Amino acid sequence: MRQKSLAADMNALNWEPYTPAEVRDGVPAAQQMLDRCDQLAQLSSLASGICRVYLSDEHKRANALTAEWLAEAGCEVWEDAVGNICGRYRAAVPDAPTLMLGSHLDSIPDAGAYDGILGVLLGIAAVAALNERRERLPFNIDVVGFGEEEGVRFGTTLMTSRACAGTWEDAWWSLKDSDGVSLREAFERFGLDPARVRDATRDDLLGFFEVHIEQGPVLESLGLPLGTVTGIAGNRRLRARIDGQAGHAGTTPMPLRRDAGVAAALAVAELERIALSDDVMATVGQLEFEPGGVNVIPGGAAFTLDIRSADDGRRDTALARFRTFADALCAERGLRFSLEEFHQAPAMHCNERLMVACDAALAALNHPPQRLPSGAGHDAMAMAEVCPAGMLFLRCTAGISHHPDEAVTLTDVAWSLAALKRVLNHLASEPRS
Amino acid sequence: MRQKSLAADMNALNWEPYTPAEVRDGVPAAQQMLDRCDQLAQLSSLASGICRVYLSDEHKRANALTAEWLAEAGCEVWEDAVGNICGRYRAAVPDAPTLMLGSHLDSIPDAGAYDGILGVLLGIAAVAALNERRERLPFNIDVVGFGEEEGVRFGTTLMTSRACAGTWEDAWWSLKDSDGVSLREAFERFGLDPARVRDATRDDLLGFFEVHIEQGPVLESLGLPLGTVTGIAGNRRLRARIDGQAGHAGTTPMPLRRDAGVAAALAVAELERIALSDDVMATVGQLEFEPGGVNVIPGGAAFTLDIRSADDGRRDTALARFRTFADALCAERGLRFSLEEFHQAPAMHCNERLMVACDAALAALNHPPQRLPSGAGHDAMAMAEVCPAGMLFLRCTAGISHHPDEAVTLTDVAWSLAALKRVLNHLASEPRS
Repeated sequence: MRQKSLAADMNALNWEPYTPAEVRDGVPAAQQMLDRCDQLAQLSSLASGICRVYLSDEHKRANALTAEWLAEAGCEVWEDAVGNICGRYRAAVPDAPTLMLGSHLDSIPDAGAYDGILGVLLGIAAVAALNERRERLPFNIDVVGFGEEEGVRFGTTLMTSRACAGTWEDAWWSLKDSDGVSLREAFERFGLDPARVRDATRDDLLGFFEVHIEQGPVLESLGLPLGTVTGIAGNRRLRARIDGQAGHAGTTPMPLRRDAGVAAALAVAELERIALSDDVMATVGQLEFEPGGVNVIPGGAAFTLDIRSADDGRRDTALARFRTFADALCAERGLRFSLEEFHQAPAMHCNERLMVACDAALAALNHPPQRLPSGAGHDAMAMAEVCPAGMLFLRCTAGISHHPDEAVTLTDVAWSLAALKRVLNHLASEPRS
Repeated sequence: MRQKSLAADMNALNWEPYTPAEVRDGVPAAQQMLDRCDQLAQLSSLASGICRVYLSDEHKRANALTAEWLAEAGCEVWEDAVGNICGRYRAAVPDAPTLMLGSHLDSIPDAGAYDGILGVLLGIAAVAALNERRERLPFNIDVVGFGEEEGVRFGTTLMTSRACAGTWEDAWWSLKDSDGVSLREAFERFGLDPARVRDATRDDLLGFFEVHIEQGPVLESLGLPLGTVTGIAGNRRLRARIDGQAGHAGTTPMPLRRDAGVAAALAVAELERIALSDDVMATVGQLEFEPGGVNVIPGGAAFTLDIRSADDGRRDTALARFRTFADALCAERGLRFSLEEFHQAPAMHCNERLMVACDAALAALNHPPQRLPSGAGHDAMAMAEVCPAGMLFLRCTAGISHHPDEAVTLTDVAWSLAALKRVLNHLASEPRS
């Protein structure tokens, strides 16, 4: 508690960290990582901008490049049964358990250069540092570059980390991309054998640890380079519809209208109020009025809801409050309201031991302790099904991600590397249970 | 005033009119008009549903059919220089002035069968009734079927009534339809001479009187077949934009958001409150969030405003209040608000003498007095530029128009015919100024 309030004081003073020597020493490695991000950014299906989807030529070339870097860092390298590129930095002893580090190498269309990728490169850099000193830990370190996290090509996210976690679904085989190529065909074209997909499953893992850009503005607003992730928010996504009566904008007096658009507007505004008061995140990203004429009263309105919280109960309560509000609003106005859920994921909680290791790493660097939840999904969410999982966030500029303007600072990458090394030290020195 | 409060009492008692003999006597003529509406409905460019646009084959055929009916009713018939079909029922005396009756024969795509058309057929039926009795009035009656009111083909409304009013614009010649055919080419293909367009201008009119379905629910809600139109609401149409900052729905805490979508929702809700309190009509018919991802906070929102009132000042005050609200809302939330007007039409006021004639016709039929404004535009709006203009509304079912479900009752059409005849009688007996 003392530490926490100290951190609060430091934040209040607009904390400007004295950069520890081990962070400064990591700047050349950080520079190499940024250069490597640029190299990977070249492997894109777009002439201008980054796009690298699962089982594409770009994926193949990204794996080849990453394989070189892994080998350079002293790893044994292989591509697993679902196209993840993997490297093992062996433990000091045989038959040791394995800690997995890494993140994903795929991207959305017109992506930034750091989302996922930096987590893979930080794993490689941490191992390279050990290798340079010929230092081996009591566990193997596997660094993985996952092939599919974003869900762009086949509409399903986290496919390759789910393969590792043993939650791959056979129903996916018939999924098709926008060119009509099925997952099965894409697998075979990439040189993979669909029959061997279960070989990717890992049951030998001590844990999974992922470093990732925050993709949000919290660390920047606190003036901090790093934060310990507490978990990944549970997410519910729904489609809402309001049906009323279309009519002529000039001939239907206001009191006689059954305007679905105004009701949708009132519902969207209320959702923000509920989210603020219930401390959840709620977003209406799509909204459309029907039929959509300038001079036509909307007879229908359709919108999406995305509701998240680290606490599933709080999220569900907020959604129930919204539903009650919208039902009453629509009943009062002679409208019909309906809500259909199309996605639900429970909150994931980071492993306490890995969070403590992360906190300890920050403390060792004189970085104020900072824990924060992740609102976005990550490979760690899938890996948590098979082993303890933890995450470290690094600050990204203006919270921008999934956009070409995505940016990190050289110093923050050096901070991340120093922290990841400290996490490995902490875990290596921990009594094994 | 006594009359007004009597009407209110009758409305309160859910007035069910005793149908006067002259309304009952008009039922066969009303049935003929409904049959003729069905015949015209067949002249469509759509295999199923009604669509009849300016200078089309359907327009040509509708003119031919209407010409037959006009001739049958005792009129001299001609097609004017812009394709309006016209018939003159001569006055009792030579060199008499002319009262024009009528409305438009064109339609939107997938239209109803009565919008405009019924006004032309009522003019013909009123003249036919005079002709049957060989009765001539102190003025010529010209019945006109306008060719272009809806603005479907060339994106500009009221073209042919504006030709009659002398406000045709030469800039229109280069307008093109969706097939790339210019207005000039369409004119020539129809057999018209663009050089002669000014011949359509009328400077000899005593007045213009139009019967039209209400296209709104007011008369139905009052339980009345007919109403005297006081004028046509002034209309302003604008495009609003709110610009904020897109962001990830999971990673951007609510207090750090600059969500353009929520601000747009608050603005739409406020517009309804302003419209109700200021007694204007305001409609947001189109609204879009950008970029439009389920899990992306809207960085932009674009919507349209349509604001109308019979009182231009009230309309402008309401718009100014909305602008003040939206400016403050967006300033408070770190957003940019902009508003761009793309259409403005001042309110049109019906000629008092024609309104009195209309009121007198209703009174003569023991129909409660009822005046109401029109929220929609009509040919009378264009004609008011060149002569006194008036309108009579008849009830349509559920206020539905611009839709295949558009409907009128046989009795209401008979009421309209009786009222139109009474209007003619009233004007004929008026001392001429």
